[in-house]
Amino acid sequence: MERAAAILRLLASGPRQLGVVELANALRLPKGTVHGILQTLQHVGFVEQDRSGGKYRLGAALLHLGNSYLDVNELRTRALNWADALASRARESVRIGSLHDGQVLVVHHVFRPDDSLQILEVGALLPVHATALGKVLLAFDLHGQGLLDELDASGPQSFTPRTLAGGRALVEELGEVRARGWAADVEELIEGEASIAAPIYDDRTVMVGAIGISGAIERVCDEDGRPRLDLVSAVRDAARAVSRDLGARRW
Amino acid sequence: MERAAAILRLLASGPRQLGVVELANALRLPKGTVHGILQTLQHVGFVEQDRSGGKYRLGAALLHLGNSYLDVNELRTRALNWADALASRARESVRIGSLHDGQVLVVHHVFRPDDSLQILEVGALLPVHATALGKVLLAFDLHGQGLLDELDASGPQSFTPRTLAGGRALVEELGEVRARGWAADVEELIEGEASIAAPIYDDRTVMVGAIGISGAIERVCDEDGRPRLDLVSAVRDAARAVSRDLGARRW
Repeated sequence: MERAAAILRLLASGPRQLGVVELANALRLPKGTVHGILQTLQHVGFVEQDRSGGKYRLGAALLHLGNSYLDVNELRTRALNWADALASRARESVRIGSLHDGQVLVVHHVFRPDDSLQILEVGALLPVHATALGKVLLAFDLHGQGLLDELDASGPQSFTPRTLAGGRALVEELGEVRARGWAADVEELIEGEASIAAPIYDDRTVMVGAIGISGAIERVCDEDGRPRLDLVSAVRDAARAVSRDLGARRW
Repeated sequence: MERAAAILRLLASGPRQLGVVELANALRLPKGTVHGILQTLQHVGFVEQDRSGGKYRLGAALLHLGNSYLDVNELRTRALNWADALASRARESVRIGSLHDGQVLVVHHVFRPDDSLQILEVGALLPVHATALGKVLLAFDLHGQGLLDELDASGPQSFTPRTLAGGRALVEELGEVRARGWAADVEELIEGEASIAAPIYDDRTVMVGAIGISGAIERVCDEDGRPRLDLVSAVRDAARAVSRDLGARRW
């Protein structure tokens, strides 16, 4: 099962389909072993084999299981209406994320309320150090320090000149996030885009996720290039509303 | 692995979290065996355990794998732009589906272009016999007859008084669908809603999926309660366009 999961993760890690030999080399397993696991994974619908080349890709059964995960995700269920309300109030797209494998897993995404073409990001993984959602998760998670150490050890990626790619600058930033209770990213992931996020707490006042908006820097930030405070308020209000629905104490 | 997949399917089959005993009973396996599989599934992130009750639900790793499946799904990738164009032209929501486990797996969903609140159905499973998408898949799939036999044996569900719940009526309907090249459902799944769909072919002229619209019956149907022919044309044009992009011959 661990080896099956490793195969699935490899197939999910890039757009390319992979053959038995490639998978066996990547996992340092005998070809025959990998072939046997693939046969079983194919039988249960978790992988599909390319008609022509015999290469493997992820299977349709995973799409349905992933969708079913969303149905039982309490954070997402409780947050649906508040996320819609935030998108209307801020006139920007809204994302809810939680920590998964040291990254931000997007569990809900409301499009910006306009007619522009937008791509649904539910299920996508975003970098913790270059998004407002991720900074909130890093700053308030009980294991945040451990994650930060792992991140520093792996040498976090710079997406733009403004990305805080680990080290002292990121540590200081997280201290500020903790002090003020919200986080922002200004062109740290994508040039011309900014995001704002705040933490969601459960009934035990443990942070369980983050909610935030993102959009063009000229809309999300003021003339000095800082996040607009009315949008910060909107995000924090939404985070508090979801937290209350999850049973957190009022504060 | 087959038993692990069976556990995941059970957890995906309803909104309730399940305990070890419930799962062991449902699968007719010893409790210890089920517990061991659950431990491994939890370790790889495929299931999560409820904080308090010790019950199990699907895990976040599945959401990311399901999302990754969409990235490599060629039908969906090729169809994205055509689905948007169809939604604009028909002013209705658009779905693309393929067969999975005898049901319609929704691999893409474009919202109706208006401001109404809509729920994303990507990853959802729809009944084959009560949707236009499903009738197309049943009528044109190479294994359609086998699926129809299985469906009849299981006694298909009636969702409304107009559902064709198997038997002679459904067989005749599928004959018509084959003859005219498209399918409709008029209040067969949901009262007040109708849908229209047409098949998508790949480069070997094998049907690989279906594309269709659905919406309120007063918009999708004419005064006689029949699918509007301009919408049928729009759906068939979109299906042909996607098929051409997949390499099908022009026809």
